[in-house]
Amino acid sequence: MRKVCVVGVGSTAYGKNKESNREMLTRASLDALEDAGVDPKEVDGAFFGNAFAVTERQGHIGPLVMSALGIPDAPSTTVEAACASAGAAFREAWVNVASGLHDVFLAGGTEKVSTIDTLTATGYFAYGSDYVFEGGNGCSFPGLYAAMATAHMHEHGTTSEDLAEIAVKNHKHAVDNPKAHLQKAVTVEDVLGSMEVASPLHFYDCCPFSDGATAVVLCSEEVAKKLTDTPVYVQGAGRAGSVAALHDRESFTSIPATKRAAAEALKMAGKTVQDIDLFEVHDCFTIAEAIATEDLGLFKPGTGAKQAREGVTYRDGKVPVNPSGGLKAKGHPVGATGTGQIVEAVLQLRGEAGKRQVDGAETVLTHNVGATGGSCAVHIFGRSVA
Amino acid sequence: MRKVCVVGVGSTAYGKNKESNREMLTRASLDALEDAGVDPKEVDGAFFGNAFAVTERQGHIGPLVMSALGIPDAPSTTVEAACASAGAAFREAWVNVASGLHDVFLAGGTEKVSTIDTLTATGYFAYGSDYVFEGGNGCSFPGLYAAMATAHMHEHGTTSEDLAEIAVKNHKHAVDNPKAHLQKAVTVEDVLGSMEVASPLHFYDCCPFSDGATAVVLCSEEVAKKLTDTPVYVQGAGRAGSVAALHDRESFTSIPATKRAAAEALKMAGKTVQDIDLFEVHDCFTIAEAIATEDLGLFKPGTGAKQAREGVTYRDGKVPVNPSGGLKAKGHPVGATGTGQIVEAVLQLRGEAGKRQVDGAETVLTHNVGATGGSCAVHIFGRSVA
Repeated sequence: MRKVCVVGVGSTAYGKNKESNREMLTRASLDALEDAGVDPKEVDGAFFGNAFAVTERQGHIGPLVMSALGIPDAPSTTVEAACASAGAAFREAWVNVASGLHDVFLAGGTEKVSTIDTLTATGYFAYGSDYVFEGGNGCSFPGLYAAMATAHMHEHGTTSEDLAEIAVKNHKHAVDNPKAHLQKAVTVEDVLGSMEVASPLHFYDCCPFSDGATAVVLCSEEVAKKLTDTPVYVQGAGRAGSVAALHDRESFTSIPATKRAAAEALKMAGKTVQDIDLFEVHDCFTIAEAIATEDLGLFKPGTGAKQAREGVTYRDGKVPVNPSGGLKAKGHPVGATGTGQIVEAVLQLRGEAGKRQVDGAETVLTHNVGATGGSCAVHIFGRSVA
Repeated sequence: MRKVCVVGVGSTAYGKNKESNREMLTRASLDALEDAGVDPKEVDGAFFGNAFAVTERQGHIGPLVMSALGIPDAPSTTVEAACASAGAAFREAWVNVASGLHDVFLAGGTEKVSTIDTLTATGYFAYGSDYVFEGGNGCSFPGLYAAMATAHMHEHGTTSEDLAEIAVKNHKHAVDNPKAHLQKAVTVEDVLGSMEVASPLHFYDCCPFSDGATAVVLCSEEVAKKLTDTPVYVQGAGRAGSVAALHDRESFTSIPATKRAAAEALKMAGKTVQDIDLFEVHDCFTIAEAIATEDLGLFKPGTGAKQAREGVTYRDGKVPVNPSGGLKAKGHPVGATGTGQIVEAVLQLRGEAGKRQVDGAETVLTHNVGATGGSCAVHIFGRSVA
């Protein structure tokens, strides 16, 4: 496998967007291509994440975007792995370039949910669960993650305040992200005083339903060196799964797919997790960030939920987690989230993250989860080849 | 890229099936693994085609199937490219093995539509069109392919009888396929006497809505040689797109993506189309088979619709097309169709196609189209390495 670089990134603002998936994703793709200095005609193909075609009755999104980009002949494939759709799309674009089969590929994703109400959206999102046993019986994702939070509290003494501190951190980070859905600081009192969505998770423990699209341009190292003196390298790529239904897992407080995907990516990068400077992890709920940081090996099991309150995971802390604001406050346009994390990684590595910039960021890990962990994609990016 | 082989195939019967997508796809996958003599634990991952999660409110199908197979840790990704979903899934499994990244992969697909009525199903299928301009204005796929048929008639003098002869051939072929949805011969009179679905297409010009799942096991040549003395080789793989909306095409009687995908696959195989012994092409409507055989270069433009009536494309003809019965009569479980064509290719190459066997089949081409050609996947299989 040869070295692959990311040379361009694009993203719409997250939040309510009047545009359709095809428009948002075309815009993000054009922005990424312009950022890369790559003519669309040089693109060999694309993988796009999208989970809920039903929201605007439009599947088969790829050819619409490729047509709008003026490259209808180039193949495009929609990838769905629930909330890890775009992470999985990036993985496939990486394989296509790393293998030597193609030189330039787009990876991205899009989601449009503001056309529907929150209850309907929650119902659609639950299609990503084991619907026969979970979503179809009313156990949609807030309920499933609430079960994980309850288990974490029971096993490790985690409190609602601990979780609220994670929300406070990510909201604070998002204030400095002009593309974030919720650019608004909240206090622990705000979180604990917000309505209970699924006990013990409050409204502010949950990510919002966002519209949005993101895209990145991948290419071979050879092509990248012609485009820029400072390419961002894909140092590691990992993909794994877990038992689909939460009730079939050995533990509610750990996601096996995170561990395996991270191990694969770290091995490829020749790194340990301690070598990574900052993390964009899948915090669809506050508890998800806590568990992710434990499964990634950043913190001992049971201690992940204490790190925000102790300042460790703030942007200026020892282990910055979700400087973008994360899914929690930056937002979660399901099919776009995975490549959205990669957009942030690239901006941080280039030193272009503005007020969000983490000083001296040399390596970044992105962690994208589908459902309660049935799917996971982990990627490691760096300013050097490895 | 290294050589890749298909060492196992599995398929449910096509038609109405009481089982869910997860059950059908697990069954097809287990059958493919048993056929290959491969323990599920040796599988590195899977790509599965599925287009209409909404029919049973179940997306994120991969982890459900991997869990049922006893390999929940292995990553799985759903691929959607409208009716070319499983062809695109196979392509990605091939890239993952050909690249050297993985040794054994599953590719397959599933669709469940018998839970809904025909009008609702037609509406869901139209999500694969350019919905803003096509499906949303009542121009679903029968209408779009009717426009292509009308153009073909206008440009080339094709008649309804010509098209009916294609249906007659594929129904005749399907009589010998115990897994076909419509194991029933029809006459030209039956076709012309059936209701007009979208003029000039009659009911019997259209493929049925089928439930079904299919799966194949791919592996490196090295692994294949340990499993069997007669592996089927993937000699060529091609993927391409076309302008999404039919009205934006230069021609209604040709699909650019077919030409490009076929050229890519043939180049890789080092073959011309005349070297291929039989074809499984995407005949969602009779006109689609005519156009496909022209775009593949089997027949001169405008003459594709005359070949069935002249006996050329029958199983015992000079150029056998759709010996399985094709989408037209074998059936069309959307997300499963692409790998279903590959199941037939492998059975033919192994000499295991029973009454459908085409004598001396050494190479087979499969051709899978999404929508009116926005996506296309072409693969070439052979009994020898190239």
